[in-house]
Amino acid sequence: MLHRARMAEQEVLLQPFGSIMELILAADTGKIHQAVVPLENSLEGPVALTLDMLAHEVDLKMAAEIIISVRHHLLARKGIDLRNIEKVISHPQALGQCRAFLQEHLPQAELITASSTAEAAKVVAGSNDKWAAIGNAAAAAVYQLEILASDIQDNRANATRFCVLGKEDCSHPTGDDKTSIVFSPRRNRPGILYEQLREFAIRGIDLTRIESRPAKSVLGEYLFFIDAAGHKTAPDTAAAIEAVAASSSFFKILGSYARWKEE
Amino acid sequence: MLHRARMAEQEVLLQPFGSIMELILAADTGKIHQAVVPLENSLEGPVALTLDMLAHEVDLKMAAEIIISVRHHLLARKGIDLRNIEKVISHPQALGQCRAFLQEHLPQAELITASSTAEAAKVVAGSNDKWAAIGNAAAAAVYQLEILASDIQDNRANATRFCVLGKEDCSHPTGDDKTSIVFSPRRNRPGILYEQLREFAIRGIDLTRIESRPAKSVLGEYLFFIDAAGHKTAPDTAAAIEAVAASSSFFKILGSYARWKEE
Repeated sequence: MLHRARMAEQEVLLQPFGSIMELILAADTGKIHQAVVPLENSLEGPVALTLDMLAHEVDLKMAAEIIISVRHHLLARKGIDLRNIEKVISHPQALGQCRAFLQEHLPQAELITASSTAEAAKVVAGSNDKWAAIGNAAAAAVYQLEILASDIQDNRANATRFCVLGKEDCSHPTGDDKTSIVFSPRRNRPGILYEQLREFAIRGIDLTRIESRPAKSVLGEYLFFIDAAGHKTAPDTAAAIEAVAASSSFFKILGSYARWKEE
Repeated sequence: MLHRARMAEQEVLLQPFGSIMELILAADTGKIHQAVVPLENSLEGPVALTLDMLAHEVDLKMAAEIIISVRHHLLARKGIDLRNIEKVISHPQALGQCRAFLQEHLPQAELITASSTAEAAKVVAGSNDKWAAIGNAAAAAVYQLEILASDIQDNRANATRFCVLGKEDCSHPTGDDKTSIVFSPRRNRPGILYEQLREFAIRGIDLTRIESRPAKSVLGEYLFFIDAAGHKTAPDTAAAIEAVAASSSFFKILGSYARWKEE
């Protein structure tokens, strides 16, 4: 199913994929121009699959970052009363993130898991029973469901950071950029990571994120994902990155992109 | 179900738990003396639940680390031939880790998921069909199954690091120790993590692991888990740790313990 949408000045076609892996591979093989994939969540941490594929399996560049607050709503067909709901269906993470609301307002309802919140909304829209789904406002609109209660998630600080991936490196400096790299320090050198971070510190470059992932060789060897302030073409950032690359056994620039601004 | 085992000079009772969370809480509330929980795997990375509970929810000390190579075997009831197997049942990760073997030797077999490899062995032991389980040698012994093929995992470098957790801090220096800490650097200070790592580097203290987890407050704030060489009572390690604690808004020593030695 393709949806149309307007991005900046362009009309684009939106195509959903069943899994993050399929989506990233579709971008890598050129079946789609760009992929929007999750990188990290403020509660659950990194999306390991995305990081591992970016490091090991594909050759894609980050063109943008997008931060979206996770907002869960209780959705039902029109005319259904909150007090009569018998079953609540959603993705297990969404059910978990709305535990306090469900315990207070729907203690009698049975909880049913679905493969995604969108799938849950679809099931509820197609059923004749007193079911509700937990999902977002877009799902409510697509499946013509009513929002019985909004923002029912337990923790308001639930946000997910996505990146836009594409084959081409289309980045240009905007004045407030970040650069993402992944590298594996040369082995058997105590303090090597500290020396690599030093390249940023001595140039006053802020690191907004350091994430480690197993190198998948032996236990105790890691890849590091670093997000540094500045565009990769800025002299200071470029010099720091070059020094890190020189002291790494594996190194990749994942891309430079504009820092996300809250709207 | 309790099992007896001998550890060092002592006889101990072993009690299985259904989930990591229950196990950690049982140790924290004193229902059991010690818990053995997974910390990280060489392919899958950190066990987020363990790290998050150690940081936020419980007050437990690491008393030891244990590294176990993951070895998967194909298990069936006696008399079943490899070529006749119709279904293979195991935990999804074990099925995934033996994909090459299954494709080569059992391309016709249906793959069925179980909640654990032990559960899979139990199901196979209780069935009269031509089923096989993927599990370890202990499961084969407990459920009296035959090992039809051993070490069928794709990647030989698959190892999991566990820690032993208890209420009491029973650590004493052994001459080759590690100390695990978790901390959150004070906010709004570019380069603060670099300065904290510097405390170890200037003292020549090797860091064997740096792992970040979301602070669960807002996106972009992190806790760092660091494993440093040396016992927390060694002057250099103690001084570095003290300096890190002083520049952190959150700080916890998770414990000092002997470095794991391959047998």
